[in-house]
Amino acid sequence: MDDGHLPDRLAAPFDHVSLRRHNLAVVLGKLRDGGPRSRARIATDTGLNKATVSSLVAELSELGLVRDGDVERAGGVGRPGQTVEVDGRVCGLGAEVNVDYIAVLVLDLRGDEVFYRRIPVDVPSLGAQRTLDELARAIRSTVADARTAGRYVAGVTVALPGMVETAPGVLRHAPNVGWRDIGVADGLSARLAEPASLDGPDSPDSPDSPDGAGSLEPIRIPIRVDNDANLSALAEYVMGSSAGVPDLVHLTGETGVGGGVIADGTLLRGNHGFGGEIGHMPIGDPNQPCGCGRFGCWETSVGLSALLREVANPADTITDPSVDLEVRLHEIRRRAQVGDGRTLRGLEAIGTSLGLGAAILVDLLNPRVIALGGYFAVLGEYILPAMEAELDQRAVLPGRGGCRIELSSLGFKAACRGGAHVALEAVLTDPASVAATPGAPASADAVDELTGGVA
Amino acid sequence: MDDGHLPDRLAAPFDHVSLRRHNLAVVLGKLRDGGPRSRARIATDTGLNKATVSSLVAELSELGLVRDGDVERAGGVGRPGQTVEVDGRVCGLGAEVNVDYIAVLVLDLRGDEVFYRRIPVDVPSLGAQRTLDELARAIRSTVADARTAGRYVAGVTVALPGMVETAPGVLRHAPNVGWRDIGVADGLSARLAEPASLDGPDSPDSPDSPDGAGSLEPIRIPIRVDNDANLSALAEYVMGSSAGVPDLVHLTGETGVGGGVIADGTLLRGNHGFGGEIGHMPIGDPNQPCGCGRFGCWETSVGLSALLREVANPADTITDPSVDLEVRLHEIRRRAQVGDGRTLRGLEAIGTSLGLGAAILVDLLNPRVIALGGYFAVLGEYILPAMEAELDQRAVLPGRGGCRIELSSLGFKAACRGGAHVALEAVLTDPASVAATPGAPASADAVDELTGGVA
Repeated sequence: MDDGHLPDRLAAPFDHVSLRRHNLAVVLGKLRDGGPRSRARIATDTGLNKATVSSLVAELSELGLVRDGDVERAGGVGRPGQTVEVDGRVCGLGAEVNVDYIAVLVLDLRGDEVFYRRIPVDVPSLGAQRTLDELARAIRSTVADARTAGRYVAGVTVALPGMVETAPGVLRHAPNVGWRDIGVADGLSARLAEPASLDGPDSPDSPDSPDGAGSLEPIRIPIRVDNDANLSALAEYVMGSSAGVPDLVHLTGETGVGGGVIADGTLLRGNHGFGGEIGHMPIGDPNQPCGCGRFGCWETSVGLSALLREVANPADTITDPSVDLEVRLHEIRRRAQVGDGRTLRGLEAIGTSLGLGAAILVDLLNPRVIALGGYFAVLGEYILPAMEAELDQRAVLPGRGGCRIELSSLGFKAACRGGAHVALEAVLTDPASVAATPGAPASADAVDELTGGVA
Repeated sequence: MDDGHLPDRLAAPFDHVSLRRHNLAVVLGKLRDGGPRSRARIATDTGLNKATVSSLVAELSELGLVRDGDVERAGGVGRPGQTVEVDGRVCGLGAEVNVDYIAVLVLDLRGDEVFYRRIPVDVPSLGAQRTLDELARAIRSTVADARTAGRYVAGVTVALPGMVETAPGVLRHAPNVGWRDIGVADGLSARLAEPASLDGPDSPDSPDSPDGAGSLEPIRIPIRVDNDANLSALAEYVMGSSAGVPDLVHLTGETGVGGGVIADGTLLRGNHGFGGEIGHMPIGDPNQPCGCGRFGCWETSVGLSALLREVANPADTITDPSVDLEVRLHEIRRRAQVGDGRTLRGLEAIGTSLGLGAAILVDLLNPRVIALGGYFAVLGEYILPAMEAELDQRAVLPGRGGCRIELSSLGFKAACRGGAHVALEAVLTDPASVAATPGAPASADAVDELTGGVA
């Protein structure tokens, strides 16, 4: 049998096919995290024997996941080593539904962003079903474009602005867009599984549109859904400025305030995947009504409405929702930079309220980092001093448990990036699964033969 | 090589000695969780081959961890199977320092409680060093008694009523006993490593007191420390009425309110191990001073002082700290049972305040169960209705995310039990480590020979 890898903890009974799959994942993970290297070095790094490594690399190459890289010349005797590297053809697609836009983002297996598109959509007015129509159209054309460019999308994860049950793929409730009990994963799967006409011009050279009559073939692809704040936290943990910090809280300032918790390197999801719902702690101004129907929730003090109320009068253009949010935030930032008193006092008030809630999170979760995303990051330097002062005063942990506050560098793409990462994770965990992806070089039959020969 | 087990996730490079250790743990875990069984059945259950299983069982038996059990007669052909079962000789010791007592509890590897002792100590008056003297004395005599009874203690975990850094074994701050920056693990290790005189009568027949002159030999044993609420949560997860619920919050009602969070089957410790500090959320009566020096912390509304203030006047004997707490709680319970209005209204107020904080925990952590321990459990039936009503009104998760409230059945022993479990976990994870325990049947040398032969 092949050499095996040791588990962290007690595991399922032994099984040769599973061991093979696991070792495929070990080799792919080593190349992705450690960079290109020769088969001999992979053998040394992993403890697998050389024949096993060669066979695993051959299968990964067949699957389109790795390819030959540069030749390594180490000087001295022995033949020069041919390196192996991760192939960027396999991609993950992250999508996002927010209050006033939908977005799609494609990351390849090497971690490079290869596509991003944000489409303005008035989601509350359009409603769930027509928004899903739009999203399916965006996903379909992105998948088709990727194929045309010689890439294939292995999975889709959709970030949603509300409480998501991840296992059935259902959005339970999203007050800010007015959705309730929407089967997003099934709804998108059904739309993508139908042949569909393109509104815009077709890609005439797409090998997957044999009829060439303005329609696209059905797409069968794994679709997952998750809460946007959870996916943003994951993106921060995997590829943000706080990458690798195992105890991390991510707070996104938007219409509401989104929370995502990484505990000991794992996203805290809880019983139904609802974990991280942090905006409704009763620590805000008890006179402020909240979208949830109550008064005094935390997000009434730190959400976007609170920001706009603090820094501007209703007639001010920065309160105009028809102006792009990023434009308005940069105007607030500009005013702060020139020392506008109202703006500075408003941002200080937001910081103080943010620190009050952060103290609860610090004491309960003892994170090493609280990362601020969304508008908190854009205006961070003016919010942070008051936030830190309040946190120091309120947290009961000595030295606030060593917690730092950091500004996320991922901007408003964080949720999409987290989604694309989750889609790729499935490939990294079980590389052979990619054979089921439309357009992948190895068919499912070919993979069965390969693994069957080992068991 | 031996058959191996598959890991849950990518793991460290392959290593034969580690694989052997892992497989020892697999076999011991199977026997502990699944009960006695024959070697042949262990082979079937684990996928390990029979020769490997026999060798592993022999080593576990040498280590004193398993022994022959009953003979299994399955009817029909074939020889009757000799079963193997977990040997109860190896034990874990959980100790606890609380405001008005110290306690020690011994659990054996079969999960049976074999010893419990609670010693009244006025910890705030005695101070840290003299309390550690007392605790070391209690641990020493318990270890000696265990040896006399043919058992040996593989490790000690001490539950402390404050913020604990687990890695260095230091208590950072425990406001309710007035300790700050106390090196509890090192302090206890040093005390136990010295030969010591017994105050009381020696155990004359102890094989480990060769001089028989009222002194005991040095004890070298792994000592860990942890927060009492964390250990209580762990005990609830491992052996309480909510055993196996992977997303669990445990709240202990005592002088303060202790919180412990199990997320996805793992105790949430955070960056320094301070996680679960939940008593100081600013959601209490802003006029009530807290032991932390601030006003309006949650525990000023739900801690023991709040309870006593709500149900009794200062002259009432149930507010007298010299009367045992359990006696006073049972008196409050008796009054509630006979329908005393003041008592019932007081318990309802406690329930409402408890529900308010629980809603924050439900939304953030989405637990399947909130388990109530300490005084909350004793008076649970009178607290629960108001708590549930408030929780339903305050939690924003639909159907409160499926969360149930349950009363812990572990009583005031929960933290000690959690500590004993942690001490045993080290044995279950690495069975060969037990050879280093004083009094263990296999010496460290013998184990090196055994594992050396495999590598």
